[in-house]
Amino acid sequence: MSDKIKVGIIGAGGYGGCGAIEILCNHPHVEIKALMAKHDTGRPISDLYPHLTGFCDLPVLDAGDPNRPDDFDVVFFATPDGVGQKDAPNWLKKGAKVIDYSGDFRFNDLEIYKGYAARIGKPQEHASPELLPRAVYGLAEFHRPKIAAADLVGNPGCFAVSCNLGLAPAVKEGLIEQDSIICDAKTGISGAGKTPTAAYHYPARYDAINAYKISGHQHVYEIERQLSLQAGTEIKITFTPHAVPLCRGILSTLYATLKPGQNIRKVLEAYREFYKNDVFVRVFGPEKPQISTNVRGSNFCNLSVNVDDRTAKLIVVSLIDNLLKGQAGSAVQNMNIMFGLDEAAGLMHPGMYP
Amino acid sequence: MSDKIKVGIIGAGGYGGCGAIEILCNHPHVEIKALMAKHDTGRPISDLYPHLTGFCDLPVLDAGDPNRPDDFDVVFFATPDGVGQKDAPNWLKKGAKVIDYSGDFRFNDLEIYKGYAARIGKPQEHASPELLPRAVYGLAEFHRPKIAAADLVGNPGCFAVSCNLGLAPAVKEGLIEQDSIICDAKTGISGAGKTPTAAYHYPARYDAINAYKISGHQHVYEIERQLSLQAGTEIKITFTPHAVPLCRGILSTLYATLKPGQNIRKVLEAYREFYKNDVFVRVFGPEKPQISTNVRGSNFCNLSVNVDDRTAKLIVVSLIDNLLKGQAGSAVQNMNIMFGLDEAAGLMHPGMYP
Amino acid sequence: MSDKIKVGIIGAGGYGGCGAIEILCNHPHVEIKALMAKHDTGRPISDLYPHLTGFCDLPVLDAGDPNRPDDFDVVFFATPDGVGQKDAPNWLKKGAKVIDYSGDFRFNDLEIYKGYAARIGKPQEHASPELLPRAVYGLAEFHRPKIAAADLVGNPGCFAVSCNLGLAPAVKEGLIEQDSIICDAKTGISGAGKTPTAAYHYPARYDAINAYKISGHQHVYEIERQLSLQAGTEIKITFTPHAVPLCRGILSTLYATLKPGQNIRKVLEAYREFYKNDVFVRVFGPEKPQISTNVRGSNFCNLSVNVDDRTAKLIVVSLIDNLLKGQAGSAVQNMNIMFGLDEAAGLMHPGMYP
Amino acid sequence: MSDKIKVGIIGAGGYGGCGAIEILCNHPHVEIKALMAKHDTGRPISDLYPHLTGFCDLPVLDAGDPNRPDDFDVVFFATPDGVGQKDAPNWLKKGAKVIDYSGDFRFNDLEIYKGYAARIGKPQEHASPELLPRAVYGLAEFHRPKIAAADLVGNPGCFAVSCNLGLAPAVKEGLIEQDSIICDAKTGISGAGKTPTAAYHYPARYDAINAYKISGHQHVYEIERQLSLQAGTEIKITFTPHAVPLCRGILSTLYATLKPGQNIRKVLEAYREFYKNDVFVRVFGPEKPQISTNVRGSNFCNLSVNVDDRTAKLIVVSLIDNLLKGQAGSAVQNMNIMFGLDEAAGLMHPGMYP
Repeated sequence: MSDKIKVGIIGAGGYGGCGAIEILCNHPHVEIKALMAKHDTGRPISDLYPHLTGFCDLPVLDAGDPNRPDDFDVVFFATPDGVGQKDAPNWLKKGAKVIDYSGDFRFNDLEIYKGYAARIGKPQEHASPELLPRAVYGLAEFHRPKIAAADLVGNPGCFAVSCNLGLAPAVKEGLIEQDSIICDAKTGISGAGKTPTAAYHYPARYDAINAYKISGHQHVYEIERQLSLQAGTEIKITFTPHAVPLCRGILSTLYATLKPGQNIRKVLEAYREFYKNDVFVRVFGPEKPQISTNVRGSNFCNLSVNVDDRTAKLIVVSLIDNLLKGQAGSAVQNMNIMFGLDEAAGLMHPGMYP
Repeated sequence: MSDKIKVGIIGAGGYGGCGAIEILCNHPHVEIKALMAKHDTGRPISDLYPHLTGFCDLPVLDAGDPNRPDDFDVVFFATPDGVGQKDAPNWLKKGAKVIDYSGDFRFNDLEIYKGYAARIGKPQEHASPELLPRAVYGLAEFHRPKIAAADLVGNPGCFAVSCNLGLAPAVKEGLIEQDSIICDAKTGISGAGKTPTAAYHYPARYDAINAYKISGHQHVYEIERQLSLQAGTEIKITFTPHAVPLCRGILSTLYATLKPGQNIRKVLEAYREFYKNDVFVRVFGPEKPQISTNVRGSNFCNLSVNVDDRTAKLIVVSLIDNLLKGQAGSAVQNMNIMFGLDEAAGLMHPGMYP
Repeated sequence: MSDKIKVGIIGAGGYGGCGAIEILCNHPHVEIKALMAKHDTGRPISDLYPHLTGFCDLPVLDAGDPNRPDDFDVVFFATPDGVGQKDAPNWLKKGAKVIDYSGDFRFNDLEIYKGYAARIGKPQEHASPELLPRAVYGLAEFHRPKIAAADLVGNPGCFAVSCNLGLAPAVKEGLIEQDSIICDAKTGISGAGKTPTAAYHYPARYDAINAYKISGHQHVYEIERQLSLQAGTEIKITFTPHAVPLCRGILSTLYATLKPGQNIRKVLEAYREFYKNDVFVRVFGPEKPQISTNVRGSNFCNLSVNVDDRTAKLIVVSLIDNLLKGQAGSAVQNMNIMFGLDEAAGLMHPGMYP
Repeated sequence: MSDKIKVGIIGAGGYGGCGAIEILCNHPHVEIKALMAKHDTGRPISDLYPHLTGFCDLPVLDAGDPNRPDDFDVVFFATPDGVGQKDAPNWLKKGAKVIDYSGDFRFNDLEIYKGYAARIGKPQEHASPELLPRAVYGLAEFHRPKIAAADLVGNPGCFAVSCNLGLAPAVKEGLIEQDSIICDAKTGISGAGKTPTAAYHYPARYDAINAYKISGHQHVYEIERQLSLQAGTEIKITFTPHAVPLCRGILSTLYATLKPGQNIRKVLEAYREFYKNDVFVRVFGPEKPQISTNVRGSNFCNLSVNVDDRTAKLIVVSLIDNLLKGQAGSAVQNMNIMFGLDEAAGLMHPGMYP
């Protein structure tokens, strides 16, 4: 037991914390040492999430409780914006690595962070601006070597994982007109978290679909940031998220105008080449259309690459489980990389069907 | 009773037939005289659709049965492609008006019809090409006067209603670059009809979303046809339909590049002007985002008009109930117009919530 | 307009108020005069329920606002327990009739009310005990003449409608052992109202079923009360409600041991006789099993009557739409009776399918 | 690899086969050697179930193909009634153990089998009656030692698992009146299998609940059989299954009249004692009501034990995932026992939430 990675999870009470526990309780190289949250302190986590009974019955502790364990090798901040940027320094000082789920460490550029923070209505001053330069954006397929060397990772947003993976080969290889990108994203409701709201009350949602934050979603920042890095030039996108009566899954339909001379064969080749070493990205051509259940419950991203010859459009359908590759799965994947483990350790499950 | 419009419904056993019965059984100026279908002949319709018990218990008849009533004022063909084009001439000769739900009479141009027919895998020869010139496309908001004068109406496809209503003001008034249109449509499963399929089996669908017929859906033809008529120039669109775990509703997110000088105020004004006389189209600005339940169970189309200033995109979210404004509701609206009734007769219900 | 019944609705912001508006906005003999609620005062109701746009755009008023209209012929209290009992006297004094949705006026016996109130955690003192003797239990099929003469009606609980209608013929005619009744009820989530809760958050509910308040649900009181009245002897039942991932509908499976000599033919006959004058109750034998969609969106109660000969059990499956026959539909049915209208006025719709 | 258990799965194309593959592809002591089915032969299983891509890409073979592998240690018949009874003898002769999902080997008594076969409309002659005496009913919690010694196991029906586990302690310990049992079961739609039907078409089911096979479901036979064995006397039950809009899960609400002198404390003690050695059964008292998501995606059965003192009823709510503890999970549990492995090998996962 002594050589297992000791994990602490802050924000254990939300879906993102629960997702990490589900993976880590069966991870061969991990020991969950402590769960922390603001609410429900004192109760075993299996009271909040009874399916964990017998798998993880640790009590929920107050992160500020001086008696809680503090000898973690890694701390997961499964918390909203603003928490990690305040507390990460303490943990880093103690020698723990930090993986933060929020936007706090997704931008290693303070100016971009400020734009992002304004968008989400947070104070634009970052609590730990000195950490930003060492923070790595936690999308393994883009930044694996940097993640391996990092002690502070900003886990990507769920929409961003979906759009970034779906567009990177096209922007990097210059297959498309860079100013023509439209991202039409559809998300399952679990992406909005555990707190009940009027919009996601079962009777209001079971047979309802809507677009929201039209042209104003905060994930635009990290999508544009990452695609710009891939392209080597500044990229702007049009992005519309939709809420659909689905629990798990994001399907992003990504449109862009192909450059002259491109065709489906060349595009597919570029996508396959780009992801040839990425175990969790599967690329499919038009003959194998994909459905969200192909990735539900797993850490995979399935990309369905299509071309509309009539209008010279690239149409990529990108599918992930928003709580796994879109959140806790990526977080564990990052942890594996940061600790030199098999990148897929604890994550190599197909999910369940139906 | 004698001055009521006598209606016959062919294809009464499907969702489209059922939808017409639901409306017409309470319509103040209509008497349903006969229901016809290929299957379940001899059984009362309320055996197939028990919620109709006491409202409509007519037997399902064989349309070829010589003893069935034939003195209809109007015949609804709630049938798939290929049926109406064969049988409509007989009914027209008897003096009945005809409203056909399929693509058989949506194109008054034989060449366009052939392209459409090839796309859906039907023989490209139309069975009654001589009728095409007098067939009117049954979207009241575009062709009200022609519908009023018509005896043969091709009821529009559900996706087409959604996209056409959402885009017409923009293309007609030249607000957008005409070659920049992308339609990302999401449909409820009732749009696929009553016949069970593997893709829409409950366990396969309840938590699944997928794109399908990418760049190949047959409704593209009538959308391009109608938008071209509005624009006075040929329009091509990129169109991607998606199946989402929803029963009723189509949400189409419509993207186009704004021409220089346009802005949300001008665009909204154009939309409101275009639909100022259309009782079933409601136009909303960005401050009132819409959800599919706002139109579910009613004949309304709600349009949410937005502009993304960062990328100069028009983003219109168009919402209908695919079985009402997208099918049976439009059919009854057309009937009302064809018979000089109040266009909203029998249709002026808000639907139910939740 | 002047001879229309003038209706005021208190608690207009909840599902029960919305349901009444949906019916009454198209009711031939009614004018909705005012909507009142504690929250959202000043906003048009169509802001809260946008599907009502154009059908009812009245503002939400504070019931205590001295400037609100007060010349109602009838006031609907679509409010939780405790509101009607305080305010009904004022309205009755002004000459309005009152229909209350809560348990406040379901018991014309103060002692029974106290037991009920204790169960739901309310003060056991009734605010208007003097009104209880004239309050009539608003289940038309049981108390039509009294309702016709009443000015104060306690609208029944949704589970109670379902169980009472399903069991009354059996207990009244003595077909069963009176101490053997088990009611296993399954409800759609709309029955819990509009306020979002953790248990009915979409991700928590879309694929989840549970029993709740096992042997402790408050509707037991009114079921036992009404069945005892029918039987002429005291009846006790075992009652277990379940929440299922359904929006609209209650299905109650009602079990009781048949008395010797009973069989399906006799039982069916008794049920049909009992309901022979009730337009909204439909009785079916074992050959026509029923499904909740047969009554969804309508005011009907469908009863499927079965006998298990192996174990001598009566098994009645009782189906209603919890928001219509289980709530707003019954309220309007009561109003119709109280004002001498056709009992079905405004209610004679089949609902929609699928 | 050579010391792994070699598994062949017949009927691999259905949900039951898929469920076994999902478990076995990550089972530490198993190698899936071949997949067989009547349909889709020649295609990789990951074409039928794309989520298995990379986990199991074996082709689907014809079970009658002479070239398919035949050196299995165990053969799973994930097939409907009638298949296993014909083919099991061949595999047993070759030395393979057999686990059959259907009713073919659930009864080691030919007369009971005949009644069961008549109920499901199958020929009453069993194809291999000589095997029945050695067939063991595959519910580990009842027959673990016999399963350990068996080479032929009849895996139990999903409803039967749920009801049997929920009632066994009560009947064995004589806590209840043995003729008073009522089982009200609610099942997710995945229990009906992969083949699409009108009743389980998404639009027909997403908001619909119904009872079916009232007093006539075939699982009654094995429930009565097993409970009678536990009780040492003949038990008859009333059983009503319901289909609810749920994918995975069975919730059975089990009612029985308590014998005098019983109370919740004694009953709970009896239940805990009965299952004290059973890792996959969790017993809860009234203070911890259970929901189906507590067992979804796992092999657990959660029992919530309650007493209604007013009516002296025992009310047990029994929850399983119908495709795991109710089918493939039990099958693997049986395999583990038959091969002397840890009973929980490959099965010790908590499932996922939400």
